[in-house]
Amino acid sequence: MIAEILGVGTELLLGDIANTNAQFLSKALAGLGISVYGHTAVGDNPGRLRAALEYGFGKADMVVACGGLGPTMDDITKEVAAKYFGREMFVDQPSWEAIQQRFAGRHLPENVIRNATVPEGSILFPNHHGSAPGVCIEQDGKILILLPGPPHELEPMFMKYAVPFLRQKTDKVFVSRTLKIVGVGESNVETMLQDLIDNQTNPTVAPYAKLTEVALRITAAAPCEDAANALITPIAEEIYSRLGQHIYGEDNDCMAEIILNKLEGQTLAIAESCTGGLLTSALVDIPGSSKVLSEGVITYSNEAKLTRLGVVLTDHGAVSSQTAAAMAEGVARTSGAGIGISTTGIAGPDGGTADKPVGLVYIGLYINGKTLTKELRLIGDRNEIRARAVVAALDFLRLNI
Amino acid sequence: MIAEILGVGTELLLGDIANTNAQFLSKALAGLGISVYGHTAVGDNPGRLRAALEYGFGKADMVVACGGLGPTMDDITKEVAAKYFGREMFVDQPSWEAIQQRFAGRHLPENVIRNATVPEGSILFPNHHGSAPGVCIEQDGKILILLPGPPHELEPMFMKYAVPFLRQKTDKVFVSRTLKIVGVGESNVETMLQDLIDNQTNPTVAPYAKLTEVALRITAAAPCEDAANALITPIAEEIYSRLGQHIYGEDNDCMAEIILNKLEGQTLAIAESCTGGLLTSALVDIPGSSKVLSEGVITYSNEAKLTRLGVVLTDHGAVSSQTAAAMAEGVARTSGAGIGISTTGIAGPDGGTADKPVGLVYIGLYINGKTLTKELRLIGDRNEIRARAVVAALDFLRLNI
Repeated sequence: MIAEILGVGTELLLGDIANTNAQFLSKALAGLGISVYGHTAVGDNPGRLRAALEYGFGKADMVVACGGLGPTMDDITKEVAAKYFGREMFVDQPSWEAIQQRFAGRHLPENVIRNATVPEGSILFPNHHGSAPGVCIEQDGKILILLPGPPHELEPMFMKYAVPFLRQKTDKVFVSRTLKIVGVGESNVETMLQDLIDNQTNPTVAPYAKLTEVALRITAAAPCEDAANALITPIAEEIYSRLGQHIYGEDNDCMAEIILNKLEGQTLAIAESCTGGLLTSALVDIPGSSKVLSEGVITYSNEAKLTRLGVVLTDHGAVSSQTAAAMAEGVARTSGAGIGISTTGIAGPDGGTADKPVGLVYIGLYINGKTLTKELRLIGDRNEIRARAVVAALDFLRLNI
Repeated sequence: MIAEILGVGTELLLGDIANTNAQFLSKALAGLGISVYGHTAVGDNPGRLRAALEYGFGKADMVVACGGLGPTMDDITKEVAAKYFGREMFVDQPSWEAIQQRFAGRHLPENVIRNATVPEGSILFPNHHGSAPGVCIEQDGKILILLPGPPHELEPMFMKYAVPFLRQKTDKVFVSRTLKIVGVGESNVETMLQDLIDNQTNPTVAPYAKLTEVALRITAAAPCEDAANALITPIAEEIYSRLGQHIYGEDNDCMAEIILNKLEGQTLAIAESCTGGLLTSALVDIPGSSKVLSEGVITYSNEAKLTRLGVVLTDHGAVSSQTAAAMAEGVARTSGAGIGISTTGIAGPDGGTADKPVGLVYIGLYINGKTLTKELRLIGDRNEIRARAVVAALDFLRLNI
């Protein structure tokens, strides 16, 4: 089955809100084995909404539309849908009673009866978080599902009522595994997997670049989840054999969380200069980080490096592997932590020289009684360089635990 | 002029990412006086992308498409666009040289030349944050703009290159002034400005809630910028008279930058607990922060509060105004800075009690020889509470300099 997702609402077209419903529904439909071939958004305009329905049903078996089910004059979705299918509208008594109960003891606005007014012959999805029921119309092999716009109403309604309805309609599922890759750029990932990408059928293999990592999505279609996973496994294994440690996790895995889990029972302290708190914060993002993380210091000035960490600068200067090493050892020693990690570098835009350009960053790591350092040459603006330095430092720690 | 926004990328249709580009572009185009009548998203499929272009240009004068400009085989937007307009593709030498410079000293993957391959006769928008230039094609009264998918590349490219290009295409000017409000929620802002919002014509007055502040956008349409600004000024003055110090700046003003400018010639040190580095990082975001910021400490454990700052916990515990005060005084004293600021609180999800619930945060401020504290009761998840604590701390500092 092929589906189109249609967002209704002028606020979408003015950029006042983000279209999170399209993302939620796309993910949910993919999991049901329903292919989404397009998203559309239109304003609260009957003519353009009608045209969008015609366009959607011209290329899809099902349209899922969100928004415009409310009681105001801007809310036109049900009327346009009813006209499209040649049906009259009527007041659904159970919905109307539920709405009156919802407003019990409060003033009932005149127009709210429109919430209970629906096309004849629809299946209704109850709304436990708002007044407007969802509507489902099947006709001539096409399915139209209308859902309320607010995500906190749409999401539970879809999961509770639309999903069981749709499960009866599909004969396959889609499963995706996303491999998360660090330390290799998108172009290089593609080059290393060129044959797999060129020859892909089912599963499909697709890399896409983010600011600090590359996501590699493997998607398989099959009659059930186990069969889909069985198709994905050999491809994933081949990719692991080629990319090895560059793959730090999958799907919703988070590098900071992986590191904290690996460091259970140990203690970590952090000394930052150019990253300015972002590295420590990446770990504090994770609940329970206090079990491992004892402290961080942002020794932004050279004096602070001396007074907090006992670091005496050499001829090599503040941005050097020597200073990174001394900072990592210093923070471990002064905090009593078993592991110390440090960053020192030039985030820009000023401060670079021919010898030490913007983007030069050193990581120091004191672990298991040894001190390691790594030199990075990063690109981007000030905050991109800092973000990339944080990920590189986390990755250096991950690979050396 | 009427525009359609087109997102290209199968990851959109699988729900892997949110379509933030459509929201950003809708807002930006509205500001230019260009009406967006629809959004569309399609996958990395040439046939469906071609159909989407035909559909878009059937109802709009301009299509702005995002995504699919990268070097991999999935990246098809430029080729489909070239075919649609009947143009050949060629390698743009300046873009190719810029890419080679970007990769200087690193391995240059074979396929990355595709980034520099563009339709003949296009205007190119340089990409200062990635390899793929933006492309603009004008033909037969239609305009097609192609932008890279990653928001950190698209947004600066659009503002710097597409906006000036589009300004020449419209016959009236829209000017917006956005007032940035902190410490008052969206509902209260609306209540305080109810008459201005209800009676708005030109300029329009629209509040938007963000995670840590409220943005109030005043937009005027006029034949030229001076006339538009003259319409805005009296409204803005009225709003300043009502909201006073709650307005910390306008448009691209950044509270951290405002604070660092005010603190010129003074020194600041930071002691964080639950904010975990985010407060220090907010200041390090600003180039030149080293002139004011000497250091930060994240005294995540109670031991660290003692050893780094000399803070002895009282019966009031780690999360108390007493501890916040001691941390602020302690970091100023141990660093030698003139001003010390601190945060201590419960970010959640665990750690809350009936007396000290999740969201309870104290700020401490040692300034001009005096110590001030503030108690906050914040809502949201762990990272929302931390982000809100950072803004509240910065605002407390701002109001007390």
